[in-house]
Amino acid sequence: MERTAKELADHIDAQLEGDGKLCISGCASPESAGPHDIIFVDSAKHLEAAARSKAGCVVLPPGTGALAELPGKTILRAKDPKLAFARIVAWMIPAQPIAQGIHKTAIVATSAKLAEGVGVGPYVVIEEGVHIAAGTQIGAHCFIGRDSHIGLECKLYPRVTLYQGVRLGARVIVHSGCVIGSDGFGFVPSENGFVKFPQIGTVEVGDDVEIGANTTIDRGALDATRVARGVKLDNLVQIGHNSQVGEHSAISAQAGLAGSTFIGRNVMLGGQVGIAGHGRIEDGAQLAPQSGVPAGKIIRAGTIMFGSPARPIEKAKVIIALMGRLPDLVEKIRRLEEKVFQNAG
Amino acid sequence: MERTAKELADHIDAQLEGDGKLCISGCASPESAGPHDIIFVDSAKHLEAAARSKAGCVVLPPGTGALAELPGKTILRAKDPKLAFARIVAWMIPAQPIAQGIHKTAIVATSAKLAEGVGVGPYVVIEEGVHIAAGTQIGAHCFIGRDSHIGLECKLYPRVTLYQGVRLGARVIVHSGCVIGSDGFGFVPSENGFVKFPQIGTVEVGDDVEIGANTTIDRGALDATRVARGVKLDNLVQIGHNSQVGEHSAISAQAGLAGSTFIGRNVMLGGQVGIAGHGRIEDGAQLAPQSGVPAGKIIRAGTIMFGSPARPIEKAKVIIALMGRLPDLVEKIRRLEEKVFQNAG
Amino acid sequence: MERTAKELADHIDAQLEGDGKLCISGCASPESAGPHDIIFVDSAKHLEAAARSKAGCVVLPPGTGALAELPGKTILRAKDPKLAFARIVAWMIPAQPIAQGIHKTAIVATSAKLAEGVGVGPYVVIEEGVHIAAGTQIGAHCFIGRDSHIGLECKLYPRVTLYQGVRLGARVIVHSGCVIGSDGFGFVPSENGFVKFPQIGTVEVGDDVEIGANTTIDRGALDATRVARGVKLDNLVQIGHNSQVGEHSAISAQAGLAGSTFIGRNVMLGGQVGIAGHGRIEDGAQLAPQSGVPAGKIIRAGTIMFGSPARPIEKAKVIIALMGRLPDLVEKIRRLEEKVFQNAG
Repeated sequence: MERTAKELADHIDAQLEGDGKLCISGCASPESAGPHDIIFVDSAKHLEAAARSKAGCVVLPPGTGALAELPGKTILRAKDPKLAFARIVAWMIPAQPIAQGIHKTAIVATSAKLAEGVGVGPYVVIEEGVHIAAGTQIGAHCFIGRDSHIGLECKLYPRVTLYQGVRLGARVIVHSGCVIGSDGFGFVPSENGFVKFPQIGTVEVGDDVEIGANTTIDRGALDATRVARGVKLDNLVQIGHNSQVGEHSAISAQAGLAGSTFIGRNVMLGGQVGIAGHGRIEDGAQLAPQSGVPAGKIIRAGTIMFGSPARPIEKAKVIIALMGRLPDLVEKIRRLEEKVFQNAG
Repeated sequence: MERTAKELADHIDAQLEGDGKLCISGCASPESAGPHDIIFVDSAKHLEAAARSKAGCVVLPPGTGALAELPGKTILRAKDPKLAFARIVAWMIPAQPIAQGIHKTAIVATSAKLAEGVGVGPYVVIEEGVHIAAGTQIGAHCFIGRDSHIGLECKLYPRVTLYQGVRLGARVIVHSGCVIGSDGFGFVPSENGFVKFPQIGTVEVGDDVEIGANTTIDRGALDATRVARGVKLDNLVQIGHNSQVGEHSAISAQAGLAGSTFIGRNVMLGGQVGIAGHGRIEDGAQLAPQSGVPAGKIIRAGTIMFGSPARPIEKAKVIIALMGRLPDLVEKIRRLEEKVFQNAG
Repeated sequence: MERTAKELADHIDAQLEGDGKLCISGCASPESAGPHDIIFVDSAKHLEAAARSKAGCVVLPPGTGALAELPGKTILRAKDPKLAFARIVAWMIPAQPIAQGIHKTAIVATSAKLAEGVGVGPYVVIEEGVHIAAGTQIGAHCFIGRDSHIGLECKLYPRVTLYQGVRLGARVIVHSGCVIGSDGFGFVPSENGFVKFPQIGTVEVGDDVEIGANTTIDRGALDATRVARGVKLDNLVQIGHNSQVGEHSAISAQAGLAGSTFIGRNVMLGGQVGIAGHGRIEDGAQLAPQSGVPAGKIIRAGTIMFGSPARPIEKAKVIIALMGRLPDLVEKIRRLEEKVFQNAG
């Protein structure tokens, strides 16, 4: 799709500086952009990269980079350039459909109800009692277990598995390889080894959730595992049974929640973070990558933590620095002992 | 399925207190139970939750919670209430079949031998020389590589991959997305980069093993990777080539065994634990979440360890606490030096 | 396939000692070998295992193990026995084909171009505009998104997903469950929660790369995520968007690269290593298992690091040892204080 700089400015409600008739046909990074591409810069420190770029058009924050500093370029001023740029990309480069119509190889159970306009790709299997709302696209090789409900305008990329009775809200995006609703890891020790504790709960995923590739979300043992609206899960994340993830929280790749963990709203978990069973992360807390929260521990709202076990990040940094000084401290103690106990001797 | 409290008591060999004719139709948690649901409580501290619950029937341990404390409820006394409850759930809510009969879209090689009663779902591919024993169910989109053997009454959920020559025992449960028998990570450095060390071993999985979603088990390089009977693997676990996991051990989500690790019997590995190559974890040892065992290290039988590298957990806790006191220790040393060397000066 | 010891010696250009007519029909480990198997030993410390082995033929390094020490065995002398053995295995036990011909159930878009000799397994879906070069094999249930390019003689095991526009070089091996080209984890906070930053870049994988089971490689946000030639990725690895992995680097299982990380050439990352966003690991650096590199940090060429955060391994080992002595240090300080401030009092 081609747009003029003026059209783009109007679309994102930005102020235009320079040539509004400039034709823009692509969205790019400063390094790879050509004269008909648009780029963005979100702070003054990247301004030079923008100036060096061949891009014809730049989205800039107010007060950063005058037209004279960017000769030959057209500027769109937006309060949040990254957000504005994201909207431009979404407008100019609409996502390719995952599936359109019901592919003739899709196996759809007779009692499944698919709204109009639902797309179902090749070799999809949809079991009895499934409901899929309008506008949703189901990629090739997906498996939708019986009695699952999928909301409006969801996108399931190829090869997603929903076990029975899973519920997805509207506009949920699920990437390839995800497994939602698998049995939780629940066993009871007995004289003859572990006995499986039946996992008869379910999974409820709210609106506008995105779930990365090969991520797994276990069903609750008796109740529901819940991922609230707006949550973003990266790739290879594990959500244990009965866990609750609050609205607009973000969990980075390879992080894992054991069973019955509680994650509040607007929480951020870095990559490879682990929360042991019954941990509780309150609203707005953040855990730096690889941090660990022991079983049953509470992380207070708004705190930023690091380490395994996690400590307040400022304290963790001091401790890490002092660990580096341990050899020096040991030597200091040795010298003190030499002095003190020799004197005393 | 509906049962009377008396029937349930008989089924689990429990002592009945209260109304044996009470009709039970569901199994629930205390929070979500209704009057025809059964719940369980495994210790006195959850007794109040049971009392508050709307559940009609409660499984309780001996000596905890008299009928008078739980007005209107029927009690089943069982030595291990969780285990008893698990048996009730398994009886009342039988698992839905994964596949029944051979679906017409399944591709089964002519030399594959499927016993009577084997269920094979849509779009399954079963290669030459495969043996599948009676009562086993193979979910949609599974791929069973040539010459693999699958024992009695196994359940492979949709989309499991077995590379060639993998052997599963009886009653093995494999969740969606698992890959069993993929090549181990074996390469030999050469002048022209890495040369692949062919991975021509296999994988042997014992009876009553359960394997979580998206878990990977590599085949041995020359011999077999072995997962002994009764082992439980959670989601996203990695079992490296040539590793051996002993009977009734349990490995939590995102834990990983590098190549040639040895895990004894009744070992417990927490989430995100990592065992480096040739590590050895003896019988009954436990590693807390995120612990790490360096290459070739031995963890002695029955010890409980924590940290990376792992230390005995009691020692690890002391060290963690003292790390928090490092700033204080540094200050103490500074004051000592001031005093001692000033005096000496 | 059967070969004489002499034929094997000629194939790997090794010196033969003993019976060149010995018939070899298998490749094995010392423990499981029989009289017609060949084994290898790469150092003197495993020589005794070779002597005890029933193997008829042993690949040994020069100067280790005379014929008299290994009675009845035939020896092949090779400078790098493991490499020589790998070549023998590859010669004697050729890998089974993943797919031959185009299976009748494969769905291949009309504009897709498949070179001669391409094998496509059952239930594969190949979208519009895909190019697949000669000799490549695509296993069952694979999904090849539109406009993807796959080079010569690649092997995609069953159930691999390539999103649109992914490029694989020649001789790339991709194991089951891999997802290549999924959206990166890019979101812009807004008043209404996260807004998706469109991920319109791609993934480029070089020649001779091998990618383990269930590994995920995200597409770049605007440019390409790149995995250079000769790289080996183990299972369950995460490569975040815009990351670059240099030639002949090896990344072990469950390691993860956040977005925009840079990995140089010949880098080795142990299992469960995590590199936070914009980290930079220079040529030849090594990170021990579970190590972590904070956001934006640089690890210098050739260094070996351990810990989270990673330190030079020798320093890390000293610190770990001293952490074990913390209780002792605290006691020393207490005794010093007692002495010093009592004396002073």
